[in-house]
Amino acid sequence: MSEAYDNDRSYVLHSWSVQGKLSPKVITRGDGVFFWDENGKRYYDLGAQLVNLNIGHQHPKVVQAIKDQADKLSYVAPQFAEEMRGKLAKRIIELLPEEFGKCFFTLGGADSNENAIKIARAFTGKNKIITRFRSYHGATYGAIALTGDPRRPPVEPAMPGVIHCFDPYCYRCTFGQKPESCGMQCAEHIREIIQYETPETVAAVMMESVTGSNGILVPPKGYMERVREICDEFGILLICDEVMTGFGRTGKWFGFQNFDIVPDIVTMAKGVNSGYVPLGVVAVQKKIADFFDDAMLYCGLTYSGHPVSCAAALACLDAYEEEGHIDNAARLAPVQAELLEGLKAKHPLVGDVRSIGLFSVMEMVKDRETREPLSPWNGAPGLMAEISRRFDEKGLSVFVRWNYIFLTPPVIITEEQLRDAIALMDECLTEAEKVILDV
Amino acid sequence: MSEAYDNDRSYVLHSWSVQGKLSPKVITRGDGVFFWDENGKRYYDLGAQLVNLNIGHQHPKVVQAIKDQADKLSYVAPQFAEEMRGKLAKRIIELLPEEFGKCFFTLGGADSNENAIKIARAFTGKNKIITRFRSYHGATYGAIALTGDPRRPPVEPAMPGVIHCFDPYCYRCTFGQKPESCGMQCAEHIREIIQYETPETVAAVMMESVTGSNGILVPPKGYMERVREICDEFGILLICDEVMTGFGRTGKWFGFQNFDIVPDIVTMAKGVNSGYVPLGVVAVQKKIADFFDDAMLYCGLTYSGHPVSCAAALACLDAYEEEGHIDNAARLAPVQAELLEGLKAKHPLVGDVRSIGLFSVMEMVKDRETREPLSPWNGAPGLMAEISRRFDEKGLSVFVRWNYIFLTPPVIITEEQLRDAIALMDECLTEAEKVILDV
Ligand SMILES: Cc1ncc(COP(=O)(O)O)c(C=O)c1O
Ligand SMILES: Cc1ncc(COP(=O)(O)O)c(C=O)c1O
Repeated sequence: MSEAYDNDRSYVLHSWSVQGKLSPKVITRGDGVFFWDENGKRYYDLGAQLVNLNIGHQHPKVVQAIKDQADKLSYVAPQFAEEMRGKLAKRIIELLPEEFGKCFFTLGGADSNENAIKIARAFTGKNKIITRFRSYHGATYGAIALTGDPRRPPVEPAMPGVIHCFDPYCYRCTFGQKPESCGMQCAEHIREIIQYETPETVAAVMMESVTGSNGILVPPKGYMERVREICDEFGILLICDEVMTGFGRTGKWFGFQNFDIVPDIVTMAKGVNSGYVPLGVVAVQKKIADFFDDAMLYCGLTYSGHPVSCAAALACLDAYEEEGHIDNAARLAPVQAELLEGLKAKHPLVGDVRSIGLFSVMEMVKDRETREPLSPWNGAPGLMAEISRRFDEKGLSVFVRWNYIFLTPPVIITEEQLRDAIALMDECLTEAEKVILDV
Repeated sequence: MSEAYDNDRSYVLHSWSVQGKLSPKVITRGDGVFFWDENGKRYYDLGAQLVNLNIGHQHPKVVQAIKDQADKLSYVAPQFAEEMRGKLAKRIIELLPEEFGKCFFTLGGADSNENAIKIARAFTGKNKIITRFRSYHGATYGAIALTGDPRRPPVEPAMPGVIHCFDPYCYRCTFGQKPESCGMQCAEHIREIIQYETPETVAAVMMESVTGSNGILVPPKGYMERVREICDEFGILLICDEVMTGFGRTGKWFGFQNFDIVPDIVTMAKGVNSGYVPLGVVAVQKKIADFFDDAMLYCGLTYSGHPVSCAAALACLDAYEEEGHIDNAARLAPVQAELLEGLKAKHPLVGDVRSIGLFSVMEMVKDRETREPLSPWNGAPGLMAEISRRFDEKGLSVFVRWNYIFLTPPVIITEEQLRDAIALMDECLTEAEKVILDV
């Protein structure tokens, strides 16, 4: 094996893994929607790495911005002002509704959410935070407490004060409702929780504007508006985690813009500069920014507002805008949705397709009637491995989790590439089905 | 004012500040131990920004490495292997004692400590962590719980399970001892705490190998060795936070190498690549790395092992080594210590000087007998502002906190520069004293 592989296996601990079971591909090159391993095999990057590489691999403008800033001034501490930092803050505020005022810069999604919580608690003087069970907000001890997914319990006790509510998961409705009987209990029960907890103790509701790695749960019409209304009724802040949904992913700049709401705080990372250099952002409304004119902001990190990260973000935002990538995502949204519906029509294993923008999932089931997952929630891959293996063979890099197959390509993808990739997915499903349906 | 200044004031939230009170300098250029503001005024960077810029501003090798990696491959997700990531992990393990095995990569100090705690808890199956009151370990909800300094209480409740012990603060001994009566109670009382908490519940003791931003508390001879012994007695892990003390700061690669101990886990950030691109590291002994061959590592972040961050680190380590900067820090250590002792001999306001490597503090007092601080712990700057203002006027960027004046220059500083800078500090103290001692 290569030196790169050996070094990795000998010296690197990988995220969320039993290390002994890994044999990671060595990645050596990337270009647009493709990357290559050390053997020269090409992959469609249908997950945009970790749903962060919205602009695709090696975008020349972003690369150039990194090089220029490195040449000019690689680092300035957070207590100083610096050109890129200020420009980026302004630019982001201008992308948001007019209520927004200032940005606090971090390094990724987890610490954006950590700092959003600190800010919400300081501003409201209240402590509790309501989040959803099927959610991921990051892995540090505050962010993992916010998280509902199975990565939380094994590291508890984490930060106290978080209450988890249920999800708008229409395919498996917690409230036993069907579309025709739905009274939007998924929103209403949050109001009931707030009352039991007493509204005076609840600082904020935090939600991914569309649930990401827990299954692309696109909320039903009116859900986010109702959640906003409930928050307003009790003076509770609404924080939208746009770490995964931001920057074109849902066909808009931000996921919340698919709904008729304005959040109080928006957290970002990933797509803001596509992860070329680590960066996270907490954007807050003016009323919150103003509060900290006279109050201490108990937030800080050595690399807040890192000039190289900010410069990469400015170039990435330029590229999204000037090259029309957000529009591209909006334009291809119905194409991606229809192609996946096509797979569902053809393949009995596909139980449900959920899609918004270039943010889609196929939920795989053993049986469409019982909706039994093809592999269990939080269990071993089982039969799903038959599918994953074929994706890999055919050069498709796809994020597969439990019985979910995600499709979240870079937003620069062309229609031709999208059709080609989904045609390959189709072949994989056909082949895997032969094995799986015989079992 | 400039556009950069206006953007900053209008749109940026700054770390650890009452925003309305800020008027940050706009930094536009850096070179070695100097940086310049937008008016062309030059400053000696005597804090190395936030004690991270060990290699100084704009080191050509580090800048080149960033540019090369950006050109080659800006981002690869953590589930893959990548050349720089593997090389850096190997390189760091080789810098550490032979017991060390693998690295988990993060983005800064806070999340290195967050992940170290997760790892220690998983490995030991125990929950409690002992840290010190005069300590800073980062600002996320886990790291701030570990922290003892006054940035913690305002954001509590944070992560549960941390017990704070007292510090080896000989100038203000908690135990009422003098050097001649000292029984190293600062170490011994940790053993007593462990017994009260029951040893079976304590996973780790975490310490900065030399306390940094809480006052450069260089532990007395034998202290760290005794702490290690106590940990061993009860099967408790010793985690050294080397975020500030790593990479030449104390005249060695790591602060703990000043003592006769081997920690179980070492956390790093800052100096590892001098902050040119965000990076943190958790290095663990082989016994711990091996444990995760069969056990799930419940740690993860999108930018773990970021290729650009890792490439910058490799170049920075090359520069430290090839250009002899760690040796330079060791060689200048006695020079810096003596020059500061000289200031103490001359200026009655200097109550104590503590120094190891290029990691020093002058503790300012109203009266050497009573040792009353010149400005109170965690209070307003008061009389210290007279000194800070003069540093600024004379073009010295110095980290001043409470009654502490820190001197932590880039480790590339020359003897001539060091003498020049300290001579300027001398002038500032002389002038400030005239005002202060008249009050
Ligand atoms: C919605 C959401 N929030 C937060 C995070 C955490 O981001 P990071 O991995 O950068 O800490 C993620 C990462 O996948 C995410 O999808
Ligand atoms: C000893 C120590 N640990 C941890 C940290 C936190 O590092 P970061 O600001 O990168 O989160 C610091 C920062 O000053 C530090 O000095």
